[in-house]
Amino acid sequence: MKRVRAGIVGFGTVGRATADIISKHADLIEQRSGVRLDVTAVCRRSAIQPKDTPKGATAVSDWKQLLKDPNVDVVVETMGGTGQSLQLLRAALSQGKPVVTANKNLLAEHGDELFALAATHNLPIGFEASVAGGIPILRVIHESTAGDKLRSVHGILNGTANYILTEMESRGIEFDEALQEAQHAGFAEADPAFDIDGQDARDKLCILARMAFEGRLSVSRIPTYGIRHVRAIDIHSANRLDSTIRLVGSAEHAENGLEVSVRPWLVSRRSMLAKVEGVNNAVFLVGDKIGTQMFYGRGAGGDATGSAVVSDLIEISRDLAAGQLNAKNISGFLSSRELELCANPRPVAWYLRLTVKDQRGIVARVAEVIAQHAINIDSLEQEPHLPKDRVSFVITIEPVSEPIIRRAIETINSFDFMVEPVLLLRIEE
Amino acid sequence: MKRVRAGIVGFGTVGRATADIISKHADLIEQRSGVRLDVTAVCRRSAIQPKDTPKGATAVSDWKQLLKDPNVDVVVETMGGTGQSLQLLRAALSQGKPVVTANKNLLAEHGDELFALAATHNLPIGFEASVAGGIPILRVIHESTAGDKLRSVHGILNGTANYILTEMESRGIEFDEALQEAQHAGFAEADPAFDIDGQDARDKLCILARMAFEGRLSVSRIPTYGIRHVRAIDIHSANRLDSTIRLVGSAEHAENGLEVSVRPWLVSRRSMLAKVEGVNNAVFLVGDKIGTQMFYGRGAGGDATGSAVVSDLIEISRDLAAGQLNAKNISGFLSSRELELCANPRPVAWYLRLTVKDQRGIVARVAEVIAQHAINIDSLEQEPHLPKDRVSFVITIEPVSEPIIRRAIETINSFDFMVEPVLLLRIEE
Repeated sequence: MKRVRAGIVGFGTVGRATADIISKHADLIEQRSGVRLDVTAVCRRSAIQPKDTPKGATAVSDWKQLLKDPNVDVVVETMGGTGQSLQLLRAALSQGKPVVTANKNLLAEHGDELFALAATHNLPIGFEASVAGGIPILRVIHESTAGDKLRSVHGILNGTANYILTEMESRGIEFDEALQEAQHAGFAEADPAFDIDGQDARDKLCILARMAFEGRLSVSRIPTYGIRHVRAIDIHSANRLDSTIRLVGSAEHAENGLEVSVRPWLVSRRSMLAKVEGVNNAVFLVGDKIGTQMFYGRGAGGDATGSAVVSDLIEISRDLAAGQLNAKNISGFLSSRELELCANPRPVAWYLRLTVKDQRGIVARVAEVIAQHAINIDSLEQEPHLPKDRVSFVITIEPVSEPIIRRAIETINSFDFMVEPVLLLRIEE
Repeated sequence: MKRVRAGIVGFGTVGRATADIISKHADLIEQRSGVRLDVTAVCRRSAIQPKDTPKGATAVSDWKQLLKDPNVDVVVETMGGTGQSLQLLRAALSQGKPVVTANKNLLAEHGDELFALAATHNLPIGFEASVAGGIPILRVIHESTAGDKLRSVHGILNGTANYILTEMESRGIEFDEALQEAQHAGFAEADPAFDIDGQDARDKLCILARMAFEGRLSVSRIPTYGIRHVRAIDIHSANRLDSTIRLVGSAEHAENGLEVSVRPWLVSRRSMLAKVEGVNNAVFLVGDKIGTQMFYGRGAGGDATGSAVVSDLIEISRDLAAGQLNAKNISGFLSSRELELCANPRPVAWYLRLTVKDQRGIVARVAEVIAQHAINIDSLEQEPHLPKDRVSFVITIEPVSEPIIRRAIETINSFDFMVEPVLLLRIEE
């Protein structure tokens, strides 16, 4: 019997779920892969109770100790962050140990270094769990679309934001209330910024775009807007347009480069994006030959993410047992080519919501600014029955390139009657 | 440079698309996989014009000739059928050549023999293209859910049937008209039985169920009902119930065995199944740990299916070039365990449509039969304004196990006022 022993560093939700799946499904895994997979060491800075320690495993509080353990063949990193986790992966790879990580943040920021190090040592890095939880989207891009030229990868990449938006819609509640509920339900952190301001989706999009388009892309180059400023009135207005709102990360080949962003979209209720509710994720791939594909499932949570970790562990274990361990050609992280971003994105339709102190002539002044930028208004609606000091207008405009609408909004935002900045949503036809 | 040479047998839509993708994306494939993939031989019984022959390839009319060609490293089978294709795969594997096939029919019927032969010779069979065209569902089941226990695999597996159903709905046309259109559009064969009577979906479901539940399942054990008897009135009645109709192949773990069938379902318009329109396919996986996942995309057509063939070719080529070619442990086709089918399926709700010659007392007689079987009627509606010799009733009933409703229908079908047999749809909550 071939045996592969895993050491798990970061024994939180994902780490524990991973250990749990391995222990529960060890026979199944052995039968399918021919390898006996065991967890032999776990590590967390705070003490791990004996009852929580996997059977037969040692519990340590310093990952350096775990790395020294001769009974660890593969290192699983589920700590998160980019400090200790970076040091751990560097050390593990340098010592010749393959690694599996669920850490999008780490790969988005230090992927180049880590995949280069892995290549040097001819070791694999399993990272399926870093994007979209249990959805095997990275394996699909790497293996199943290997013969195709991809045109677009986009989707709903943050379950917390999606939960908030769907709760706002289904129950007609305000953003703050939906956020609090997400926190109570355990879907949002006490500091929710990473989820609701789009950085989490941005890190995942960065990894997806690099996999799909095979080049360098630093996260700082991805324009990122969150959902913090979406209000019940926007959901209401979206509904009137037979639409709803989704936070979408998108990387798309245009004529003169890649269009990439994380931002809220107004999407038709009839669209597949609109069907993705609650904490689910969905990733769309568009390729020359494959056409449009969609991959949908739980985007977070211990079980789904742990399943992805275990699928990577099984693949590595099989190769390890067969003496065929090697670095995969993850070209997106090994290429030195910078992905070229599109300077002049293609025109799309937009939704603008203005919140103003009511006074005479506002519509005229706003309409004038829009006309000055050669933008055509598609519809304009003022919400009735609102307090005079907080009146909302919703304007939809015909397709224009983003820089043009941004310039117009800059002028509008400078008007003294504006209570808060314009909320801008991309309208997906 | 490592070079792998493919020979394609069956140079129809899929075969030509495969050759086309390889020729168009050869550089891309080489850059990603480190292998130069070429088509060096093509085979079709009817002559292949020189202009259609891939550059540098020889065209032959007998696959035995192609198999003898020392310039063929991998054999691609896109002939279809179970006669010549079976002989070809037997011969290729026996000669030590790995194969890729798009032939669901062949694998559903002779999968055991072929995978056993492949194991004997330690050779892989690539068969991603055999199910759901470009959707990489077999790779997902084999690799990405390797650490999980699956509970259900179901979905829309036949694009032609789905095209017909969505055309009937969107344009309010009858089945025959929609079928004719599908034939004109090239989505349906002159003899459409394989698509509309469910055998094509059944073959695919057979492969999916064997992959997901790892045991033997002959196609003859899969209860299969098509869409030939679905009428505009059913689509209309479905709409009134805020639902639509989809042909669904489903294999689901129940308490005492597997529930497996291909049949039309009445599905809520709000469901993901309802969102799958036209010739698209969608496969749902439900697992203990992964939860519910859905994989959506083009289920047929040369480009999508050819992409799946090429993804298999790339995987095999990479292993071939590295000297690491080996049979995969496709346990579903290597296990001698028979999948146990559930004798007493769980209760579900049903839709019945009766077409009768109008006479007094029909409703009473039908209602009596239903009551005799201890079945509760949920709703009953008679379509108004229909000719007296062809009146339709629609009855929905509360959840009962299939054998019970089948027995009731048997009695109802024997009544002399019945113009045609009852149409039965499973209602998915």
